[in-house]
Amino acid sequence: MIRIGVWLGDRNEDRDWIARLATLIPGARVEGLAEAVPDTLDYALVWAPPEGLLSRQAALKAVISVGAGVDHVLRVADLPRHLPILRTTGPDMVQRLREYVALHVLAHHRDLMDTDARQARAEWQVFVTPTANRRRVGVMGLGRIGAACAQTLAALGFDTAGWARSPRDLPGVRTYGGEAGLAEFLDRCEILVCLLPLTADTADILNAGLFARLAPGAAVINAGRGGHLVEADLLAALDAGRLSGATLDVFRTEPLPPDHPFWRHPRIRVTPHIASYVDPDSGARVVAQNILAFDRDGTLPDIADPGRGY
Amino acid sequence: MIRIGVWLGDRNEDRDWIARLATLIPGARVEGLAEAVPDTLDYALVWAPPEGLLSRQAALKAVISVGAGVDHVLRVADLPRHLPILRTTGPDMVQRLREYVALHVLAHHRDLMDTDARQARAEWQVFVTPTANRRRVGVMGLGRIGAACAQTLAALGFDTAGWARSPRDLPGVRTYGGEAGLAEFLDRCEILVCLLPLTADTADILNAGLFARLAPGAAVINAGRGGHLVEADLLAALDAGRLSGATLDVFRTEPLPPDHPFWRHPRIRVTPHIASYVDPDSGARVVAQNILAFDRDGTLPDIADPGRGY
Repeated sequence: MIRIGVWLGDRNEDRDWIARLATLIPGARVEGLAEAVPDTLDYALVWAPPEGLLSRQAALKAVISVGAGVDHVLRVADLPRHLPILRTTGPDMVQRLREYVALHVLAHHRDLMDTDARQARAEWQVFVTPTANRRRVGVMGLGRIGAACAQTLAALGFDTAGWARSPRDLPGVRTYGGEAGLAEFLDRCEILVCLLPLTADTADILNAGLFARLAPGAAVINAGRGGHLVEADLLAALDAGRLSGATLDVFRTEPLPPDHPFWRHPRIRVTPHIASYVDPDSGARVVAQNILAFDRDGTLPDIADPGRGY
Repeated sequence: MIRIGVWLGDRNEDRDWIARLATLIPGARVEGLAEAVPDTLDYALVWAPPEGLLSRQAALKAVISVGAGVDHVLRVADLPRHLPILRTTGPDMVQRLREYVALHVLAHHRDLMDTDARQARAEWQVFVTPTANRRRVGVMGLGRIGAACAQTLAALGFDTAGWARSPRDLPGVRTYGGEAGLAEFLDRCEILVCLLPLTADTADILNAGLFARLAPGAAVINAGRGGHLVEADLLAALDAGRLSGATLDVFRTEPLPPDHPFWRHPRIRVTPHIASYVDPDSGARVVAQNILAFDRDGTLPDIADPGRGY
């Protein structure tokens, strides 16, 4: 019998996932992670679990992150370091990020912020933007999600580049790799999309130095993690006109506090961590498949490398 | 020698196009349409010309519309009815419309209006939208532009349908034709994009009866012509919640008057006729090619059919 504990930080969500996994994995016992008897669980399905919950389950075979990122698991202070961590990425997650990235790149490309501001003043002002093939966009992070997003932008006609820690080939996308390729990649970006995993190497990567390398008046979209962005540097770059706008889906503190300056900045669009979403319907099916495969094989393509950080 | 008169309604634009065409068509004489001596011109390049300008050029071989639509030419009261009218569609126009349609369909799909309204209230509210494959979108008008837009939406993952006067096949898009297919097409639309030509048949087509057929809470995007939309019906459908939103690029009166209710309606996004644009750079090259080809062959693929109206 497979025993699974669930902690998503919300009682209703937990109940939903528990019911779905119990149906999808016949014979499994699925319960709340906090309620489970110590040392009885095989798997813990979590989002940002508090300290103490994982370490008291000494028999765990793996932790499953409800999401593509595992930073919220790795930062648990008493996380047993030997534990495999399974990432959850399904076709719906990739699709949702493709949509989000296409929408917000197009919005910056077509000056939607300015259009909306003029509408508020009932101001009719015709303007022309270059066609997408004359707009240089760049995607940081070329994992399964980043690669799909970069290729979606290329298919829309954008002059698209991608950057990742290790160089990789991607049809239709000009790719750059590692520290050596970063400057050249940034130099050409008019719209930059961050889809990196959050690691020691990528924390604070969206900072004043990076903004200064981008094309003048560039826009930045962060759908990675809040920890990628140095918030004060973004505000300074926007207020100096170095950047023309930013769309942010992730924040150092979520929910974003009501008094945070991002909410009311005229050049920042805030979205409430909705770029992607592991919905219980398709997400539970992916998680169930991953648990069954890992339980059978002891490994999985979507297993994180704690040393690498993602 | 080819003699060309230009009228775009703006002196600076006229000068720009005159200079470009003179360069692109060696030996041509290019001048303002209003300044030309009567009966001396071979071609008139126009946007919404006033009465009198075309009829006094009795030697015209064709009129060239600076745009894909010819309704603004056909409505000239004293237009010599025998005159061929050449449409102007180039790769940049198609590309600009693909971008516009993708942007605004995605914006409705991902509830951007609500996201922005919540941002104005500093309100963090996570919400989930279906993935694009579970969103049924429809494009009315499947000419060169409409077909490209429908296929762009299909490539983004949307469940995409298209409707045109005559049935036609389009890979990846479910197509409907004529009056007989209209009701079935509309029934399935959650986001409707109008890219029709404006003709006697399509005038006022976006009306209460059509809105009532769409899926409840549907959104409407009009990048066709202002004459397609019954403005009062749209306001009533939005205020009744029958429609969830509209994005409008074209209007019965342009510029849209400052006191028009569309400007400040919370469920309407107004864009100032910028969905596409025949820019002088790439546009003049297309026009020059079309004039040279028509002058040589006496016909052209992009010739309008005044009887059909487009």
